[in-house]
Amino acid sequence: MALPTVNAERLAARLDAVSRFGATPAGGLDRQALTAEEVAARRYVLDAARARGFACMADPIGNLFIRRPGRDDLAPIVAGSHLDSQPLGGRFDGTLGVLAALEVLESLEDAGAVHAHPIEAVAWTNEEGSRFAPGAMGSQVYAEATSLAAMLAARDGSGASVEDALAAMRAACGPLADRALGAPIAGYLELHIEQGPVLETEGLSIGVVDGIQGARWLEVRIDGRSGHAGTTPEALRADAGDAAIRAATAARAQVRSQGDERVRFTVGRIAFEPGSVNTIPRTARFSIDLRHPEEAVLDRLEARIRAAVAAEAAPCTLSIEPLMTVAATRFDPQVTAACAEAVQALGHPVFRLTSGAFHDAQFAARIAPAGMIFIPCRGGISHAEAEAIEPAHAVLGAHALLLAVLGLDRRP
Amino acid sequence: MALPTVNAERLAARLDAVSRFGATPAGGLDRQALTAEEVAARRYVLDAARARGFACMADPIGNLFIRRPGRDDLAPIVAGSHLDSQPLGGRFDGTLGVLAALEVLESLEDAGAVHAHPIEAVAWTNEEGSRFAPGAMGSQVYAEATSLAAMLAARDGSGASVEDALAAMRAACGPLADRALGAPIAGYLELHIEQGPVLETEGLSIGVVDGIQGARWLEVRIDGRSGHAGTTPEALRADAGDAAIRAATAARAQVRSQGDERVRFTVGRIAFEPGSVNTIPRTARFSIDLRHPEEAVLDRLEARIRAAVAAEAAPCTLSIEPLMTVAATRFDPQVTAACAEAVQALGHPVFRLTSGAFHDAQFAARIAPAGMIFIPCRGGISHAEAEAIEPAHAVLGAHALLLAVLGLDRRP
Repeated sequence: MALPTVNAERLAARLDAVSRFGATPAGGLDRQALTAEEVAARRYVLDAARARGFACMADPIGNLFIRRPGRDDLAPIVAGSHLDSQPLGGRFDGTLGVLAALEVLESLEDAGAVHAHPIEAVAWTNEEGSRFAPGAMGSQVYAEATSLAAMLAARDGSGASVEDALAAMRAACGPLADRALGAPIAGYLELHIEQGPVLETEGLSIGVVDGIQGARWLEVRIDGRSGHAGTTPEALRADAGDAAIRAATAARAQVRSQGDERVRFTVGRIAFEPGSVNTIPRTARFSIDLRHPEEAVLDRLEARIRAAVAAEAAPCTLSIEPLMTVAATRFDPQVTAACAEAVQALGHPVFRLTSGAFHDAQFAARIAPAGMIFIPCRGGISHAEAEAIEPAHAVLGAHALLLAVLGLDRRP
Repeated sequence: MALPTVNAERLAARLDAVSRFGATPAGGLDRQALTAEEVAARRYVLDAARARGFACMADPIGNLFIRRPGRDDLAPIVAGSHLDSQPLGGRFDGTLGVLAALEVLESLEDAGAVHAHPIEAVAWTNEEGSRFAPGAMGSQVYAEATSLAAMLAARDGSGASVEDALAAMRAACGPLADRALGAPIAGYLELHIEQGPVLETEGLSIGVVDGIQGARWLEVRIDGRSGHAGTTPEALRADAGDAAIRAATAARAQVRSQGDERVRFTVGRIAFEPGSVNTIPRTARFSIDLRHPEEAVLDRLEARIRAAVAAEAAPCTLSIEPLMTVAATRFDPQVTAACAEAVQALGHPVFRLTSGAFHDAQFAARIAPAGMIFIPCRGGISHAEAEAIEPAHAVLGAHALLLAVLGLDRRP
């Protein structure tokens, strides 16, 4: 049997069709998790799957699984991503990975392919976390079933709970067999847009993801003493704004002194109170977003940043609170090897990169060998209506996904 | 004739009485310009003046003048300040200067003193500028009559004009003779709280003000490119927030390198857009409040700050807009000498300082020899309900004001 290939026209048509659900006038999406629009996208995917005779399942947090069968004694190889978007997001973030996984199943069906493992497409619930917090809810609950009750109780801004939204989704989506949380997965693959500029800058069409950066979000708060900007001499000031600018500078200097270009350091928000031109700030706050692929480096950098910030606070007082901590994820070598072989088989150089953004694959990696494939997005832009890709890259990505799935299936 | 002295009990009683108009529960004032509360305070002062037989006048912008007569061929010596407060201000900022000037007139009357010049107390309209912009409206119009029409048309947040508010004030204040804008003034004196910590820190009860700092307010805006904090490598960023922090640091370094402790440099507000922890800022704005007693130094410092900020902007773009420019004021040597002699006569050391805050005396100084006397305020705090003074300092300040007025009157 020749290796099956993907159907470029079908994939393009499905991407167009699903883009209608939650479409914004500017060409993006507003399709937040478990809204009517996102449920319509789910229904579209399920109808396409049912038309091909694939079994459709849902677990208690609403993750959808679509299966082409294999041997009953083997756990499935699962590929997918999510169908929900940011409030003003793009058409490809998540959706590409789900539709490419469906295309893998359909291509296998077209070819009458035989595989040892069952092959599944998954659409995880609420990856974006914009309507219900936290994000990556579905993949997290799948990996950690103990978090289910708390997640079902989460509510959106209007007071609607995840539990109620899931009931409405199930009512609209037709019959879905039950899937147990945490049911074994033999391998997990996710195709996604890069959400960054690296592939485009390198002139590449595809990349193999070796892991996902760990992240530390810190909130630095400095308290000083307010005062009149005209009347208070320098020596009598406890200027929280000045201390904050010195602290942010010192933190960044620590990062730069490492000479490690894999570090990501961002001060994304800052505010002074009372925030008046002619008043010495009494309180200053700023955020730090620090990321690196290695936990040990994050530990060392966070300690240095904390010390550097503390050294600049006087005469003000300082507090540093962690806002979020996400451990670095290193993908499974067998899975990344299968991805690399697929890319190579398609005549492309194997370029390995680390994901700067978070993905469902982080949680899938806790319970299964996991990996990801990236394609470029224009200007590195995502979480924006302007998000765009080259159609040929989508086809290439889906084809690589298919080959990687089959590569995993062949491994002992 | 012995030198007259002030009546400490009367001054204290008047301060208490006027504090009732616009009193806040926390012991401060909400008595913005030409509100019912401020008009009530004006009425109280006018009633006290009329009870002593002093002539009461108002000019077209509502500045009140209260006169004890002298020779008709001499211009008056004028002392005063303002009765309006910030939305949450203190009891003494402005009010002390008006009531001390009234006390000067009453003390002279009590003593049956004879002076060459007419002596006047003035309450300038809308010094604070919080209800109607700009501040120091009354003294500015008195010094620059050409600005009258524009100021009368100024409106508050509810749409009420200065012109309408003045008509209501006049209707409530009883008969007021007309005073011409810009009518000659032989000398101007203003007693005020310092609004800063210098006198208190030095352990002094009174200070002679040699001038008012000039100020330059600048708005720095830096435009870069937004991006994902996790996925965008350092080398591909145009991080407006990073550039702003570097620019603010460089600006402050220029100031510090001068080694001139008279410089005041404050970054009072800063903001990044879109202002999200995990998004590289596309736009950053911050304010600079720069003050110094000498215009030449301000010119030099502003140029250096602009150059330093510009040097840090790349790869972002930069704009620097002046928000406000106030020229430095140097008070008249004869008037400051009269203040110094008064302080010395009362047994206090002569300590000269420059005002960091703006005052009506800045505009009075454009048309008359002018000067100011400061007393300490607790912790340097003003424009706050917690503003407080030592009662003995108020009496000392009023007494010095009286002696300085008489000193000016005796000069050839």
